[in-house]
Amino acid sequence: MTPSLTPDTTTAPATAGKIMLVGIGPGSADHMTARAREAIIEADTVIGYVTYIKLVADLLDGKEVIRKSMTEELDRAVTALEAARQGKKVALISSGDAGVYGMAGPTYEVLFQAGWTPDDPVQVEIIPGASALNSCAALVGAPLTHDFCAISLSDLLTPWPTIARRLDAVAMADFVVALYNPKSGRRTRQIVEAQRLFLRHRRPDTPVAIVKSAYRRRESIIFTTLDQMAEADIGMLSTVLIGNSNTIVRHGLMVTPRGYANKYDLEQNGQTRDGEKRGRSLSTGLLGWLETVQAQYAEGTAIETLAQQYRLPADYIRATLLEPISELASTDTAEEEA
Amino acid sequence: MTPSLTPDTTTAPATAGKIMLVGIGPGSADHMTARAREAIIEADTVIGYVTYIKLVADLLDGKEVIRKSMTEELDRAVTALEAARQGKKVALISSGDAGVYGMAGPTYEVLFQAGWTPDDPVQVEIIPGASALNSCAALVGAPLTHDFCAISLSDLLTPWPTIARRLDAVAMADFVVALYNPKSGRRTRQIVEAQRLFLRHRRPDTPVAIVKSAYRRRESIIFTTLDQMAEADIGMLSTVLIGNSNTIVRHGLMVTPRGYANKYDLEQNGQTRDGEKRGRSLSTGLLGWLETVQAQYAEGTAIETLAQQYRLPADYIRATLLEPISELASTDTAEEEA
Repeated sequence: MTPSLTPDTTTAPATAGKIMLVGIGPGSADHMTARAREAIIEADTVIGYVTYIKLVADLLDGKEVIRKSMTEELDRAVTALEAARQGKKVALISSGDAGVYGMAGPTYEVLFQAGWTPDDPVQVEIIPGASALNSCAALVGAPLTHDFCAISLSDLLTPWPTIARRLDAVAMADFVVALYNPKSGRRTRQIVEAQRLFLRHRRPDTPVAIVKSAYRRRESIIFTTLDQMAEADIGMLSTVLIGNSNTIVRHGLMVTPRGYANKYDLEQNGQTRDGEKRGRSLSTGLLGWLETVQAQYAEGTAIETLAQQYRLPADYIRATLLEPISELASTDTAEEEA
Repeated sequence: MTPSLTPDTTTAPATAGKIMLVGIGPGSADHMTARAREAIIEADTVIGYVTYIKLVADLLDGKEVIRKSMTEELDRAVTALEAARQGKKVALISSGDAGVYGMAGPTYEVLFQAGWTPDDPVQVEIIPGASALNSCAALVGAPLTHDFCAISLSDLLTPWPTIARRLDAVAMADFVVALYNPKSGRRTRQIVEAQRLFLRHRRPDTPVAIVKSAYRRRESIIFTTLDQMAEADIGMLSTVLIGNSNTIVRHGLMVTPRGYANKYDLEQNGQTRDGEKRGRSLSTGLLGWLETVQAQYAEGTAIETLAQQYRLPADYIRATLLEPISELASTDTAEEEA
């Protein structure tokens, strides 16, 4: 039962309490930040899902520990606020990063509902940590590398059409995708639907890595392919990483290339390819592309044809054509490629 | 000039070298993990972009330090491999997480090109860290919370149409989006194009946060809106966070709600709404949605109509209709909402 969220009318305690939203990373002591560790040590009260509490057990002597099990994050946030209003320093822990499917959002929702503002004596600090996608990626190679997305397959709070639309959009646009909450005892069909949507755009042999309990005792890493993904051993503690159209698996490592082959001939001593320059946009980068499109249009190519060729909306092509290209070439310093 | 990438034919050193790809997080000592710090301390040689080297200066006494400036990541990776082949322990540092627009991908590309395999005496370890999107998010509130994407606006290695297609897809599918490399002295129009694409789908007043140098001396946080984004003060050290259609800014904090309002009436003591159950999928979750769609289809609604109503591909709707709904209701345990 969710406690009621009412404005604070009790007497303020002598010392103001504090809520620290701690991202503990994958859960091993090695991979916690100094500030995360410090925050838990500093706390009077530590609140969290029972599995995460276990991961930091060595830091909890003498503290009030509130273990939450199968209840909503809202309860934990309300309990944290009540304790902080009593003057306690509260560490509300999340695995990974508190801001990614963690306690940060729910806590602020509860705080706002309760009339809290940043001027309140109770202060709030969010301590960032490496999310599951970062930790899992580090164990399988370099699958992320470039543009990626995180999507939760949990439909407990999100309508399925919204999730499906997201899966289809990112599969079409060729992102590397991390699926959180991919499957549970109850939710077994969502991963099948995700596979169905991805197969509309990606090759069946697209690399997929499934990582469970990264950096923990029962760590397990499975490599498979998109067409086998739905049958793989996936559970509540798993993160699924789906490669993009360039991702490869070699020597047991999943690597998404950065795109150097677009610019450099890696077989020939790393020379830049014809028309390309180190430290400059690709010839097919924005300015080069705009010039090409303008030339095509000037030659009489219809906007609809351009839209199909580049797989971009016609109204977008029309709008960019209307805007003149004027770029400063202020310095000749090569740009850091990131 | 990129050194040549040839297989190793030199005599193997007595002790095998090691390459540690270290994600140092936002750059303050507080926010480094224990393992990241340890790896740098353990290293004989530390290689990195000059700005990141400065961030860990206190750990570098007695070490060989190789500062790279405006050159490609490939050079750093090649230098790391050469040093490791001489038996050195090499820390190759990235800000944030090495796997996210960092050194992990480029290093594996170089290693594979040089004929390295995991059986090689030179071992490779990736040490995960909080990426810029996690650190920046922690400073502005809870903007991520749920499904999000990271997109780099750097077209040095990626064609513009690919980037544009990604921006449009994630704007349509209502993700929270983190833009990396949003702007530089040379690349000033990409952010304008990103704004143009987002405005096709998002309200002009969609919250945007721009964070520079998170957790560092010159930290700066600006809140603005989508229609003002292109004019804002954005530089090479900035990360831009664009909210989704539910993101709000209240009391100077940017928060994307988790979706509890879909299930609970937060104004009324947190009661579940009619038809919803704690610990269970939403009535519009996958199974409920499939039942609804099947009922509509049985009543004679055309697949094309359903496709338009739910904004999903017609072939997807057709395929799911063909597959019977069979879900195990194995236990009655409420599911953790994540």
